[in-house]
Amino acid sequence: MIDLAPIGRVRSSIETTDDAPRQGLLEDIEGTIELESQYVEGLTGYEVGDEVLVVWFADDADRSLLRLDKREGRGVFNSRSPSRPNPICLTTVDILAIDDGTLRVSGVDMLDGSPVLDLKVPLD
Amino acid sequence: MIDLAPIGRVRSSIETTDDAPRQGLLEDIEGTIELESQYVEGLTGYEVGDEVLVVWFADDADRSLLRLDKREGRGVFNSRSPSRPNPICLTTVDILAIDDGTLRVSGVDMLDGSPVLDLKVPLD
Repeated sequence: MIDLAPIGRVRSSIETTDDAPRQGLLEDIEGTIELESQYVEGLTGYEVGDEVLVVWFADDADRSLLRLDKREGRGVFNSRSPSRPNPICLTTVDILAIDDGTLRVSGVDMLDGSPVLDLKVPLD
Repeated sequence: MIDLAPIGRVRSSIETTDDAPRQGLLEDIEGTIELESQYVEGLTGYEVGDEVLVVWFADDADRSLLRLDKREGRGVFNSRSPSRPNPICLTTVDILAIDDGTLRVSGVDMLDGSPVLDLKVPLD
């Protein structure tokens, strides 16, 4: 078993899964990423306008599902659905403002309060 | 705290961090992804030639590091380094063969034995 402590949380206006857009960037939804104070140094070098790949955890996902749809039959690992045994999700956002450990971003598709596990530079 | 059970393991010829290429796909290193039997159904729909985004855990990463280099000063969250508080890594591989829960793949940059947390369809 692997134990992970969240490095922060997402704050967004998305309260239920039905509100979440399929692709964050298509909708330009804004939100914030609030890092725990002990991790703020890890943001060094980011500037307004940069893209960040947010690795987050979908608390509310169905972790027992292995196929998306009985008729279609596609496996969850052959999809981008949040439903999967380890619901680690990836969303690329744009930085609008940086205030110490709080990033104001656009392109959010995470539910309010979602745990953030990691931040990375996106691949091109 | 978030608990994750690996869905499988990577088998590769990479035994130490020094052997690992910076970008898996640049090197065409082959390896296998061996899923636990209870998760094999989640692969449904994958075919030889497809790309898969492997979400894996770098067991041996330095989880205390917040800056990559004291001189350069770049934060770990502003990088793709495996060194980070939650060393969740992302590698896109190409499927060469599928045998039940074992995927033969190219583009590997994971150490032999690395836990696999998730598999996804890559974004374009």
